[in-house]
Amino acid sequence: MAGAGVDALVLRPSPDFRFLGGREGPYLVVTGDAVAETAEPARLVPEGARRVGVDPEMRVRELFGLAVEAELVPASAVLAPLRLRKEPYEIEAVARAVAAAEGVLGQARELAWFGAGERTMARRLRLLLVESGCEEVLSLRVAAGEHTARPAHPPGERVINPGDALLVSVCGRWDGYCAEVARVFAVAEPPEDFEAMYSVVTAAHRAGLSVMRPGVPVAAVSRAVGEVIDGSGYGRFAAAHAGRGIGLGHDEGPRPGEDTVLAAGMTFCLEPAIYVPDLFGARVADVVVCTDGGPLALGTSPHSLTVLDR
Amino acid sequence: MAGAGVDALVLRPSPDFRFLGGREGPYLVVTGDAVAETAEPARLVPEGARRVGVDPEMRVRELFGLAVEAELVPASAVLAPLRLRKEPYEIEAVARAVAAAEGVLGQARELAWFGAGERTMARRLRLLLVESGCEEVLSLRVAAGEHTARPAHPPGERVINPGDALLVSVCGRWDGYCAEVARVFAVAEPPEDFEAMYSVVTAAHRAGLSVMRPGVPVAAVSRAVGEVIDGSGYGRFAAAHAGRGIGLGHDEGPRPGEDTVLAAGMTFCLEPAIYVPDLFGARVADVVVCTDGGPLALGTSPHSLTVLDR
Repeated sequence: MAGAGVDALVLRPSPDFRFLGGREGPYLVVTGDAVAETAEPARLVPEGARRVGVDPEMRVRELFGLAVEAELVPASAVLAPLRLRKEPYEIEAVARAVAAAEGVLGQARELAWFGAGERTMARRLRLLLVESGCEEVLSLRVAAGEHTARPAHPPGERVINPGDALLVSVCGRWDGYCAEVARVFAVAEPPEDFEAMYSVVTAAHRAGLSVMRPGVPVAAVSRAVGEVIDGSGYGRFAAAHAGRGIGLGHDEGPRPGEDTVLAAGMTFCLEPAIYVPDLFGARVADVVVCTDGGPLALGTSPHSLTVLDR
Repeated sequence: MAGAGVDALVLRPSPDFRFLGGREGPYLVVTGDAVAETAEPARLVPEGARRVGVDPEMRVRELFGLAVEAELVPASAVLAPLRLRKEPYEIEAVARAVAAAEGVLGQARELAWFGAGERTMARRLRLLLVESGCEEVLSLRVAAGEHTARPAHPPGERVINPGDALLVSVCGRWDGYCAEVARVFAVAEPPEDFEAMYSVVTAAHRAGLSVMRPGVPVAAVSRAVGEVIDGSGYGRFAAAHAGRGIGLGHDEGPRPGEDTVLAAGMTFCLEPAIYVPDLFGARVADVVVCTDGGPLALGTSPHSLTVLDR
């Protein structure tokens, strides 16, 4: 903490909190010589503390109620670097989460999509997630037709029809660790030109994966993804980023915009995407672990376009 | 906004965001003359804005990334008073959420609790919640035996045995609106002295309910609850507060610590509790609406101690 110029950390239940062994909360206060759970964090922050790191998941309403007399900065400056490389037991936990998420998407193929609304299908997926042991659903996307072109589309009333592309993704937490899987389906038959666009996304995914090895800057993953998409002519429709780290948190380092160099033990959600406004979009997301032997995709389900029968 | 000395509001998906009609986000920016959804809130905040209200549900990591050059204050100063009194359609929505939550607790009675762990039972309840259409599980408590004395106990591995008290509560969001219901069960038979303590909690609930009418300060509800508990000799084990408002948010105004005067259309989660450390505790939570005709409990399930058969 001294290195980051921070005198104390105040955390509340969150990935950082769990990383430091927090159990009940409501707050965990970390100082130079102690770690304690407390209901009154301000009392445990050392007198005269100048800078205090606060949990990046803390809500603004909690922040304004903290009553800590110090400059408040995100605790991530201290903890994010420590969380980048996962221990083997953590990678096993992420792999279990990925297996659960993939299991849900596998079951999703068997559901009756035709004529149902996006929101109805999202509810069914949520049920499958919870049945799989998911403790927290972090994001759940069901987008049909032109909605596949909206990256943050919340499931709505649109009915899923033959000829629609369908973008389905689930992100959740199982036994503390997160996974996300996104796949694309076509309903009865893919829309015109869809397969060509989709094949660019899967090629970009392969390109990103191929460079993920220790010693390579994480920015190289984005470059590899971007080159494929740019070369296809879809460049201006590419998603802004090619992924992000995943582990105790579902959106953590390494981030492509940072200077991080990949190292063994880093877990990354690789998720290239193309969104053509009002027409269609596609995103393929898989969790990958960087190992000394190269990139290892924790998911096993293929990227080939699944056509759902009518 | 001018009244609160705020030049703009920056909201992200949250109860305040939904209250102002936000749909996709990621941010909603409200200025004196416009409301707009945007990915770049800093660009829509008027130049020269001095104070900007930020969403109380915003995360610290988002807050530090806002890049808004102004003093940041919670948007609640502007919006919380507007959200206090619910429109009839909102009360209907809360009532539907209460019915769903009560339905889940009703089903909970039929589950096999004996010999199961708290966490296993919490998973089963989560499944029932999602099956009931719950969009977001906001809190889920299953506490057995001495754990009932811990207000924020996360479900753990403790096995539920005959002779245990059991505290079960569910809080979630259905179609945008929240409800919470908490009930107490006894497994096969209640522990010694438990029924006497529990009867104090239900009497405190009745006392709190009886004063909830327009024109009464919300603090009077806490006083009524507190007097019953104090008079029983359990005063030093009483929960710090007797409830809080509920609606689009699960923890909003009116709050007992505030100066709010109750008015028709306010919806309140009345939840007196007694926690005797290491021994047992009890909390009974119900959503109540303040009407011109007096208090109206939206839930219908009785407070009598349910003894679960072996």
